[in-house]
Amino acid sequence: MSFHFEILHRSSKSRARLGRIHTPHGVIDTPNFVAVGTNGTLKALDNRMVDSIGLQLMFCNTYHLLLQPGPEIVRRAGGLHRFINRTMPIITDSGGFQVFSLAYGSVADELKSQGKRKRDGHVMKIDEEGVLFRSYRDGAPVLLTPESSIRAQKAFGADIIIPLDEHPPYHIGLEKLKRSLDRTHRWEQRSLEEHLKNPQGQAIYAVIHGGVDPDLRKESCDVLSRLPFDGYAIGGSLGKTKSEMYEMLPSVLPRLPDEKPNHLLGIGDLESLEMCVPFGIDTFDSSYPTRAARHGFLLTQEGGVKAEQAGNANCFGPIEHGCTCWTCTHFSIAYLHHLFKAKEATAHILATVHNLHFMVERMKRFRDDIACSRI
Amino acid sequence: MSFHFEILHRSSKSRARLGRIHTPHGVIDTPNFVAVGTNGTLKALDNRMVDSIGLQLMFCNTYHLLLQPGPEIVRRAGGLHRFINRTMPIITDSGGFQVFSLAYGSVADELKSQGKRKRDGHVMKIDEEGVLFRSYRDGAPVLLTPESSIRAQKAFGADIIIPLDEHPPYHIGLEKLKRSLDRTHRWEQRSLEEHLKNPQGQAIYAVIHGGVDPDLRKESCDVLSRLPFDGYAIGGSLGKTKSEMYEMLPSVLPRLPDEKPNHLLGIGDLESLEMCVPFGIDTFDSSYPTRAARHGFLLTQEGGVKAEQAGNANCFGPIEHGCTCWTCTHFSIAYLHHLFKAKEATAHILATVHNLHFMVERMKRFRDDIACSRI
Repeated sequence: MSFHFEILHRSSKSRARLGRIHTPHGVIDTPNFVAVGTNGTLKALDNRMVDSIGLQLMFCNTYHLLLQPGPEIVRRAGGLHRFINRTMPIITDSGGFQVFSLAYGSVADELKSQGKRKRDGHVMKIDEEGVLFRSYRDGAPVLLTPESSIRAQKAFGADIIIPLDEHPPYHIGLEKLKRSLDRTHRWEQRSLEEHLKNPQGQAIYAVIHGGVDPDLRKESCDVLSRLPFDGYAIGGSLGKTKSEMYEMLPSVLPRLPDEKPNHLLGIGDLESLEMCVPFGIDTFDSSYPTRAARHGFLLTQEGGVKAEQAGNANCFGPIEHGCTCWTCTHFSIAYLHHLFKAKEATAHILATVHNLHFMVERMKRFRDDIACSRI
Repeated sequence: MSFHFEILHRSSKSRARLGRIHTPHGVIDTPNFVAVGTNGTLKALDNRMVDSIGLQLMFCNTYHLLLQPGPEIVRRAGGLHRFINRTMPIITDSGGFQVFSLAYGSVADELKSQGKRKRDGHVMKIDEEGVLFRSYRDGAPVLLTPESSIRAQKAFGADIIIPLDEHPPYHIGLEKLKRSLDRTHRWEQRSLEEHLKNPQGQAIYAVIHGGVDPDLRKESCDVLSRLPFDGYAIGGSLGKTKSEMYEMLPSVLPRLPDEKPNHLLGIGDLESLEMCVPFGIDTFDSSYPTRAARHGFLLTQEGGVKAEQAGNANCFGPIEHGCTCWTCTHFSIAYLHHLFKAKEATAHILATVHNLHFMVERMKRFRDDIACSRI
């Protein structure tokens, strides 16, 4: 089935919408949460376990897969779905985010360092052509360009791919941000052209940039909306606080082509979901629920519970009553408490299963709420 | 069902025998391999996955469970089976092995240090009463005696339990070894008496000691065979080389009560299994297959293969053709190679599933071979 997007219902209370993204590997009900499986696996689960949890879209990182195992091996395996044995849809990014994080550090690092570059050791050159960086695996120089990123993503064969973009640091002057935005638009256009040489059933989402500047965000929406992308991701710096993001998104979303799906990059904590679903976001990716799981933070209706909290040692019931996940139907929170205390990897498996199941159920509830215009 | 042992067939070619140990939690076909789940879980698997692999007996360590979560919590949970959600049989040890390893180091450490004590920091006192040591968790002193070990094992409620024994270092003079053996026999008798106050359907196996001295091994068999143990484990120092063990076992086994099951403690690599099944060993425990899995060593008919070996990067078939395990039926060795290279915990899950399935199948083959007197 070729890629297309259906809108099933629009809330009368907000811009939230209920939809269905059709892809060659099946349907993604929207709004939905996308778990991050950087290296072609969710951490501490195998991909058939993930299928059984009902997670409809998985995010893999081109930067990591490019360096290990590399696109040639994935191509020879018959593509990423076959290589990692995932039957449901996959989205890959361009690799740009990770490469520019090497150059500028993460937003958190950067805020701490007041905008001084901290970790530019691995990026050798950034110019119009692309980014030259050193592989963290073997030190070999790797040139990432709009074209090479798309070619890698062609080898991987994800259902949805993303063009290369520049990720300027948060602490950047307006003029520099503007120049970066123009380059990002040129790179996205080159990516789109490379993609259209051989679409092979994949969809490509543009990435809207412009930082927290309303005019630049508007410009980015205008420029990219004129190009035949299949969907629109919102990327770049979303602000240093959540309120900056909550302020920016309501002006961006109405400027995107309404009939196309959109995606919010890198955001998926519970508070942000509650705030952003009413803005009309269709999909969200985040490593939050899986990373929280590995730190022993178990999601619940009340927000969550730390597995290692002393009070759990004697709780022989499930993490949450009524939860139908594998973990809650088979194991007690006292046992999870013990496994975390004993530093057993099994703790990570069981906590990850629970948190992902929680996200799948949470998104179902959002969709039910939209269907009834409760949000 | 109360504990008993059936011998179904004796090989005409060796002392190997085919049997069935009945326990309150089901049957253990013998000879069989016992996986080690120190903290109440096999590393990187959950106990329902272990059930599905068909592993009939799991070994848990009293030393670890005593310190975390402690016997009281397990008792309140309704026993170890309920706490860890295992439906099939469990065996626990006395805790002695780990405590004495703290005092003398492992045999490997000790051989390197020529018998000088290396790590006695945590053991505070060893006397006729028992061993006083410091908890590695909170530094609190813990007194392990024959009675306290049995009481902990009563709280855990494993199907098979083991009396406290002393583990003298390999480098010990004959006189000291003899005195240690006498103490071990007294401790085992005290353990048995404590157990018989409240058998609660558990079986208790004696532990035969005597190091590599044939006369002391003989004495240990004679002393312990006169006591009403339900089975006999062979423990203590089995020698510094495998050949010392292969020399010792054929003289020990004929001295054990033939109608009772026996167990070889801490041995379960493929070569030792092939050598020791013909001696008439009924069960073997070892962390070898699970530890090997985490190091990327995958067991095969030909001995095994390193997942990270460069040649596997392009092998899109299973670890071993014909293997029916979850890993081999769903994933390629190229994917495992990638997961190990990318240091993903999923690699440990998939490799452990394969190695345990391999052990289950290997033991079935031993049993088939005994049934036909091929070994």
